[in-house]
Amino acid sequence: MAAAEQGVDAARKEKEEEEEEQVVNPWEVSAGKGGIDYDKLVDQFGCQRIDDALVGRIARLTGRPPHCFLRRGLFFAHRDLNELLDLYEKGEKFYLYTGRGPSSEALHLGHLIPFMFTKYLQEAFKVPLVIQLTDDEKFLWKNLTIQESKRLARENAKDIIACGFDIERTFIFSDFSFVGGAFYENMMQVARCVTMNKAIGIFGFNLEDHIGKVSFPPVQAVPSFPSSFPHLFAGKDQLRCLIPCAIDQDPYFRMTRDVAPRIGYQKPSLIESRFFPALQGENTKMSASDANSAIYVTDSAKEIKTKVNKYAFSGGQDSIELHRKLGANLDVDVPIKYLNFFLEDDDELAHIKKEYKEGRMLTGEVKQRLIAVLSEIVARHQRARAQVTEEMVDAFMAVRPLPNMFG
Amino acid sequence: MAAAEQGVDAARKEKEEEEEEQVVNPWEVSAGKGGIDYDKLVDQFGCQRIDDALVGRIARLTGRPPHCFLRRGLFFAHRDLNELLDLYEKGEKFYLYTGRGPSSEALHLGHLIPFMFTKYLQEAFKVPLVIQLTDDEKFLWKNLTIQESKRLARENAKDIIACGFDIERTFIFSDFSFVGGAFYENMMQVARCVTMNKAIGIFGFNLEDHIGKVSFPPVQAVPSFPSSFPHLFAGKDQLRCLIPCAIDQDPYFRMTRDVAPRIGYQKPSLIESRFFPALQGENTKMSASDANSAIYVTDSAKEIKTKVNKYAFSGGQDSIELHRKLGANLDVDVPIKYLNFFLEDDDELAHIKKEYKEGRMLTGEVKQRLIAVLSEIVARHQRARAQVTEEMVDAFMAVRPLPNMFG
Repeated sequence: MAAAEQGVDAARKEKEEEEEEQVVNPWEVSAGKGGIDYDKLVDQFGCQRIDDALVGRIARLTGRPPHCFLRRGLFFAHRDLNELLDLYEKGEKFYLYTGRGPSSEALHLGHLIPFMFTKYLQEAFKVPLVIQLTDDEKFLWKNLTIQESKRLARENAKDIIACGFDIERTFIFSDFSFVGGAFYENMMQVARCVTMNKAIGIFGFNLEDHIGKVSFPPVQAVPSFPSSFPHLFAGKDQLRCLIPCAIDQDPYFRMTRDVAPRIGYQKPSLIESRFFPALQGENTKMSASDANSAIYVTDSAKEIKTKVNKYAFSGGQDSIELHRKLGANLDVDVPIKYLNFFLEDDDELAHIKKEYKEGRMLTGEVKQRLIAVLSEIVARHQRARAQVTEEMVDAFMAVRPLPNMFG
Repeated sequence: MAAAEQGVDAARKEKEEEEEEQVVNPWEVSAGKGGIDYDKLVDQFGCQRIDDALVGRIARLTGRPPHCFLRRGLFFAHRDLNELLDLYEKGEKFYLYTGRGPSSEALHLGHLIPFMFTKYLQEAFKVPLVIQLTDDEKFLWKNLTIQESKRLARENAKDIIACGFDIERTFIFSDFSFVGGAFYENMMQVARCVTMNKAIGIFGFNLEDHIGKVSFPPVQAVPSFPSSFPHLFAGKDQLRCLIPCAIDQDPYFRMTRDVAPRIGYQKPSLIESRFFPALQGENTKMSASDANSAIYVTDSAKEIKTKVNKYAFSGGQDSIELHRKLGANLDVDVPIKYLNFFLEDDDELAHIKKEYKEGRMLTGEVKQRLIAVLSEIVARHQRARAQVTEEMVDAFMAVRPLPNMFG
C-alpha cells in the first residue's frame, strides 16, 4: 500500500519535467499545470463525488457531526458508500481497512490524515478495523533489506497506535508477518483473475519491472475480503468492507472490485481523500529526501515554526500595500490548505479565509496561526507516541479474535 | 512444481500439430520428430551430462551400488553435482528437495520415478528431504478450486509417503499450508531479482496470462534455500541443496541459480531425469484425460495386463517371420523403455534386450515380463498406500524440527 499512503513521497526519484498531463497512481502523483484536477480524476477513475446529502446522511446515521475532513470536502470521492450505508441502516455491520507502506522512519502530517479519519469512522460507526503495513511492498519497491522493512513497519505501527485506535476493535498486521493461510489463498484467487496486460494497464508496470511488482497487487487487494482474517471474521464471508484512503490508491481497489464478484466476494466500498500538499505547494512533492518539504511528526516546535515561515508557499501579494489592495489567492496558498485540514473550528477558519482573501489579514498572521495549530497537533502526537510500548505493538499485532469488535 | 513433475500430463489441452522443434518447459513437453533430443536439451539448458566417473563416485561415496536409474542413464544430467560431492566428501552435509504438482487423484508410474530415486538418495547419503506439493500452482494453472487443490495435495502425499520415506528425515508441505514467514520473505527476495521480461523468456509466459503465473516461480525457487525452513535449518543458511527432478523443471532452477548469489545464498545442485514415456511412445503424451496412455498406481493387475498388451508401442516387426529375421527396434519400443526403468536385474535386462533385438524374443514375451514387473511394483505400492493413515500424513506434514535428520 498502503491504502493510506499519500503516494507523493513514494514518487520517482528522478526529477521530471512538469507535464501538462497529470499522473496519479500508487507510486506517483504528479500534477499538471495548475495543480491536481480532482474532477478529472473522479471521471477518469470512475468513482463518485461525495455530496452534501451523503455527508448529512453519515452525520444522521452516526449521531455525531461529520468529521471536518468530510464537511470540507477533503475526503471527496467514494465507491458504493451509499450502498454500504443502506445496509448499515438495516443493522448490517461492516469493517474498515486501511494501511501504510512503511518506507520511512517518521511520518509526516500527510501520512496521519487517513489514520485520523479512520479513527473517526471507527468511533462513529463502532466497527472493527484492519491496518495493513505493506513491508513487502516497500522491500520490493525501495532499496531496503527485509529486516529494515520489518523494522520500519513496527516503528510506523507505533505512530499509528498513537493516533488513538481502540485495541478492542483494531488488528494491525505486517505482510511479512501475516501472509499465509487463508490470506495467501485469497491472494491466489485474485491473481488468477488478473492478466499481466490488465495489471500493466491499471498500474503502469513495464516488462523490465521485476515480477515482485506484478505479484504485489493481490496482497493489497485481499484485506478487502473478510475471509482473509479467519481469526476475526470466520463465518462472515459476506461482511462488507469500507476502505478510507487517498485517491492514488484507487487503482488497487478498482482491480479488487472487478475481481470480487468473480470469486464470490462482496466489492469493498471506498471513501477517498485529496492529497495533502507539500509545503512548497501542490505542484511539488513531499519528499523523504527533502526534510523541508513536509512537517514530520518528529519535528520540534522550532522546526515547525521555521519550516512554515520559510517554506510554506504563500498566496499573498509581494508587498503589504498590494496585499491590502488585492488580497490573497487562497487557491494556491499552502497555510490555508493546511488549516483546511487541521483547524477544527469552522467559524474561525471561515473568518481567516475571508480576512486573508480580502487583504485585511497578512500571510505572516495566517502562518502564525498555522504554526500554533500544527505545533499543538505534533506535540500531542509526540506525547501519545512516547506512551506506546513494544508490548502495545505486540498487542495490536497479535493474531487474535476481537470478541467485542461490533460492541 | 513440482520438481518431480513429469510435465507431460500438464501439457496444453488443445491438440497441437507435431512440430520439428521440440518444446520442453514445466508445463509442456513435446518431442520433435524422432523423440526427445536430450543432447540438444542439455546444450540448450546449459546443464552437464552425468558420466560413468560421476556414477562411480556416487557409488564410492555412499558405499552402495548406484541406483539403476543412475547406472542406466535415466538420471542423465546435473548441475554442480561434483561440487556438492566434493563438500560431502569433506563432511559437509546437504539436503534434498523435490516435489509434485498435485493435479490428479492417482499418480501414474512416471510420477513415482523422482520419488523412488529421491528415496534412494535419502538412504544413501543419509540426508534430510523437503517435499513441496504445489497446490497453489495447480490452482493457478488448472480449473480447480482451492479446496480441491488442497485435497489432491493430501491424497498425493499418501502416495509419496507410500514410497517409503523416512519420517525422521522428511518434511512434506503444501504451499497453501506453508507459504508465509521466512518462506514468503525468500519469495520476495527472489521476485525482486527477476524481471517480467526474464520470466517471459525462461517460462514462455505471455501478457494475457494471469499474474498468478508470473508470481509463481519464486514459490518453487525458495525451497532451494535452507532459510525457508527455519524449523529445520535455523543457523544453517549456507547448507547445500540437491534437487532430483525431471529435466522439464530445469527452467525454475536456472532462474533460482541465477538469483541465489545475488541474495547471499548457495546455488542448488540438480540431478535431472529423462521423461517416462506414454504407453503409445515418446511422441505422445501421458494424459490424465486418457487413462490408456499410462499405468496408474491404482490400476488392477488386469488393467495393467490389458493396457500393456493393447497400447504399449512395440518396436517389433509386423510378422513373426520378419521379426525373427530383422529383430526389434529397441529405440522406439515402449516395453523395453519401461523395463529400463523398472526391471532391477541388469543381467536379465541385457539378456532381454539382446534376444529381442536379434529377433529371438517376441514382443508378446517382452510384454509378459513387463506385465509381471509392473504388477509387482503397483501391487507393492497399493499395499503400502493402504497402510498410510491420515495421522501419518499429519505427522509428515507437521512443521517440526527433525533432530536426527543427518544421523
